[in-house]
Amino acid sequence: MEMLITYDVDTSTPAGARRLRRVAKVCEAYGLRVQKSVFEVVCTEVDWLLMQQRLLDVIDAEHDSIRVYKLHHGALAKAEHLGHSPPAPHHTPLVF
Amino acid sequence: MEMLITYDVDTSTPAGARRLRRVAKVCEAYGLRVQKSVFEVVCTEVDWLLMQQRLLDVIDAEHDSIRVYKLHHGALAKAEHLGHSPPAPHHTPLVF
Repeated sequence: MEMLITYDVDTSTPAGARRLRRVAKVCEAYGLRVQKSVFEVVCTEVDWLLMQQRLLDVIDAEHDSIRVYKLHHGALAKAEHLGHSPPAPHHTPLVF
Repeated sequence: MEMLITYDVDTSTPAGARRLRRVAKVCEAYGLRVQKSVFEVVCTEVDWLLMQQRLLDVIDAEHDSIRVYKLHHGALAKAEHLGHSPPAPHHTPLVF
C-alpha cells in the first residue's frame, strides 16, 4: 500500500521537541522523507499497523496531529513538485 | 479534482517568512488547511492551473518546495488521523 503521512507536533515545550524527533524517527523507519513533516510510505498493511501503534505511543493526542492518506498504487510516483527537486522515488533502484 | 498540497518554505530569512505567508494565503484561497503546511484542495483543473501559477509566482524555486498529490475522488474524506481532531470535511455542509 502507498500512503502519505503528514504531521504537526506541538514543539512549544522541550517534551514536544522530543516527540517531534521521535515521530520523525518512526516515519524514517518506514518511509521516505520528502519534506520536513511529510513522509511517503510504501508498506504492507501489517507494517502500517505496527507503525501506527508506534506513532500512537509517541504522540500527545491532545496537542499533536498526524494525518494519513492512503493512495492508489502509483500515486506517489505521479506526485508533482514546484520548486527544488524531490528525493529519489521509491520504486527506482538507487545508484551509488 | 481532489489534491493534497504540502509545502516547505525556507524561513531562515525575512524574505522567506514573507514567502511562507504568501504561499499559505494562496492555498487558503483554494483549500482547507488541515495542518500548518498541508492543505486539502477540491477544485477544477482550471482552478489548479491558476493556483499553480500563483504559487510559482510566490516561491523561490531554489529554496522552497511544494508537493502536489492528485488523489482519486473520495480520498480526502477517507483520510485517517491520529491525535487531535481534524477540521470539517469538504463535502459536508457546515452547521452554524
